[in-house]
Amino acid sequence: MTDTAPTERHAAFLDDFATLSGFGATDRGGVHREAASDADAAQRAWFGELLTARGFRVCADRVGNQFGLLDAVPGAPYVLVGSHLDSQPFGGRYDGAYGVLAAVHAAQRVAARSRQAGTAPRYNLGVVNWFNEEGSRFTPSMMGSSVFTGLLDADTALDTRDLRGVRLGDRLAELGRPGGGAPVLDDVAAYAEIHIEQGRVLEDGGHAIGLVCATWSAHKYFLTVEGEQSHTGSTVMTDRRDALLGAAHLTVLAREISDALSTPDTPLHTSVSQLTVEPNSPVTVAREARLHLDLRSPDETVLERANAMLHERIPEIERLARVRIAVAGAHHWGVRPFPAAGIELARGCATGLGLSHREIMTIAGHDSVNMNGRVPTVMLFVPSVEGISHNEGELTHDADACAGVDLLTEVVDRLAAGVPAA
Amino acid sequence: MTDTAPTERHAAFLDDFATLSGFGATDRGGVHREAASDADAAQRAWFGELLTARGFRVCADRVGNQFGLLDAVPGAPYVLVGSHLDSQPFGGRYDGAYGVLAAVHAAQRVAARSRQAGTAPRYNLGVVNWFNEEGSRFTPSMMGSSVFTGLLDADTALDTRDLRGVRLGDRLAELGRPGGGAPVLDDVAAYAEIHIEQGRVLEDGGHAIGLVCATWSAHKYFLTVEGEQSHTGSTVMTDRRDALLGAAHLTVLAREISDALSTPDTPLHTSVSQLTVEPNSPVTVAREARLHLDLRSPDETVLERANAMLHERIPEIERLARVRIAVAGAHHWGVRPFPAAGIELARGCATGLGLSHREIMTIAGHDSVNMNGRVPTVMLFVPSVEGISHNEGELTHDADACAGVDLLTEVVDRLAAGVPAA
Repeated sequence: MTDTAPTERHAAFLDDFATLSGFGATDRGGVHREAASDADAAQRAWFGELLTARGFRVCADRVGNQFGLLDAVPGAPYVLVGSHLDSQPFGGRYDGAYGVLAAVHAAQRVAARSRQAGTAPRYNLGVVNWFNEEGSRFTPSMMGSSVFTGLLDADTALDTRDLRGVRLGDRLAELGRPGGGAPVLDDVAAYAEIHIEQGRVLEDGGHAIGLVCATWSAHKYFLTVEGEQSHTGSTVMTDRRDALLGAAHLTVLAREISDALSTPDTPLHTSVSQLTVEPNSPVTVAREARLHLDLRSPDETVLERANAMLHERIPEIERLARVRIAVAGAHHWGVRPFPAAGIELARGCATGLGLSHREIMTIAGHDSVNMNGRVPTVMLFVPSVEGISHNEGELTHDADACAGVDLLTEVVDRLAAGVPAA
Repeated sequence: MTDTAPTERHAAFLDDFATLSGFGATDRGGVHREAASDADAAQRAWFGELLTARGFRVCADRVGNQFGLLDAVPGAPYVLVGSHLDSQPFGGRYDGAYGVLAAVHAAQRVAARSRQAGTAPRYNLGVVNWFNEEGSRFTPSMMGSSVFTGLLDADTALDTRDLRGVRLGDRLAELGRPGGGAPVLDDVAAYAEIHIEQGRVLEDGGHAIGLVCATWSAHKYFLTVEGEQSHTGSTVMTDRRDALLGAAHLTVLAREISDALSTPDTPLHTSVSQLTVEPNSPVTVAREARLHLDLRSPDETVLERANAMLHERIPEIERLARVRIAVAGAHHWGVRPFPAAGIELARGCATGLGLSHREIMTIAGHDSVNMNGRVPTVMLFVPSVEGISHNEGELTHDADACAGVDLLTEVVDRLAAGVPAA
């Protein structure tokens, strides 16, 4: 198992990462490249060329998932490794992109080892750039991997429209796509992903690696507040049916639920985001407001208490603001473990490399959350400085980023050799 | 002073009003024709043709104020009568439009009387469609009359951009404008306007006419809430700086201020409107929120208590949401009376026509509020059913609308003859 020298391979990774970070680069060190934006199209083109130059066969599926395949064993399934290149608006350069590029380097190194050793792996290697993990412009998030794993219908995804009414399928057709022949779920033997933590647990504990053992439970809601349009000045206060006031009460309520139920041992994260107001005029009481409201906890009991509190309080808000609140698009999942065999595989690799590590839950959703349960899945974290994420100031130190690539390489090497992850 | 028969002239007015209501008509009986929209351009073209067909000389100024002039006395100043044709998004068909068309009919009738009587009036007659009274797309509201009265610089107005970045001046250039030679403030001897009440005072009291005696005092603010962009899921609650949460607290606070200080005798109207969130992504804590917050009262003491309460509570909201709140664009006016002579002039006309009437304050801003203080100004209201306004269901009964035109005709007749309104 020879390999290039650490300094050389780390520099190669960081070079590629610097190039990648130039796509949609913002003045403040972040990236602005929402899925299907021009910047995303440019980085996808670059990424395809990079994969081709390094010997991968490049292909994509209908919903924009982009693959680079190394076929060493004709007909064998793939160990798939990847993450996503799209970002939040004015987001950080590590979120997703780090994991995709780490996957390329890990796959290249594992393939090189095989060639040098003259041994045939059990599985082929595939790198994936999942389409639209962020879901900022076209919702829902984790779109590409949801379609890939059968959780979302491809046509439904392609019919999604952004806030301005642009249909995703039309936008993807404009951007074009490389050749077909993309793998499907049945072609995948195992999946691995590395991602920044987006929290402070690893940094606070001085750990280089997080072995992701489970996903927080969550309730995600899409709420519509219906009021009645009127004049902000002349309408008598008691006559108003102010949808924005209703939305404001819901936003404050979300925080109150966390304040009431969250403890250091059993945290509860709550948020309201993407608030849309109709008609958003300066002199008009809003007739409608739409918003996303999330509740998340590592403890399902706490989550259910939060959920009950939310639903109990909605009638009070309806009365206060004289609005009707419709709760739709509810999306719920419980605490979902990642397979123990995968965690142990990764633990062994981390120990072998001398990397301090701990088990950790993921709060954020990831493409690996979709893959988990479908195929044996290993999920890894590297530290985020101060936990800052979805922010231009997002940072993972070079040493941590490179250590992550080294660990991913070892994990992929084992998976390709057939070591079970579940 | 002969005139056409009431049934005939009322039918003529209602016919014109039905045609006008077709521009930007919505399925639910309202109109959607924001200033400088295609629907606004279409109605302006139609209105220009109507004025020309009825003998008016049509012209417009740089900022889109559209005039129809009847020059009977060479070189004499104008009695200007009008309102605005633009609407809120999905607004009502009476707000503004009623007053513009009432002005045309009143001016025609007064001119016909003069011709028939063979007498020369003291002043010429002018009808005006003020540009962008609503200020829904391009702020501020009352834009055209603000420029006309010197309260707003024309270049500043033309440099205004909508939420998508379109510059008003560019949009107006696209739409083109009819010939110059528009009057300026110095050419105006007096101003009269009739408008729907947009409240329930007249209807509740069974009055046909409101003689507007003063404007409520107001504080209008533009607030910017600065937070920090982060992940709605993974960011620890105590690390969040949620601009949307700050905006929600401000929205709830506005209502609390009204609840605390408003009484039946001294009402206080408060509102938050046009809330813009950055980046408005479903998975991102907002880094910035911008909103309009208004406080309005007929009692300046109550208004100042409300204003003090708002400013006292802002630091608490900054602390709760960990945000910074900047208060800008503050716009304030006190209770402003309309001249007593104008009220008495209108009262005499209403009595003469047998129309029940009462004095009333205006809560909403109107172009007449800008003209008041610059030239002698008379402001009249007709009832709004249930006070509904800025809503597709806005309604004024035909009989009330026609009675208002009759009253406006008498008022304009007196003003044109030189009866002082101040």
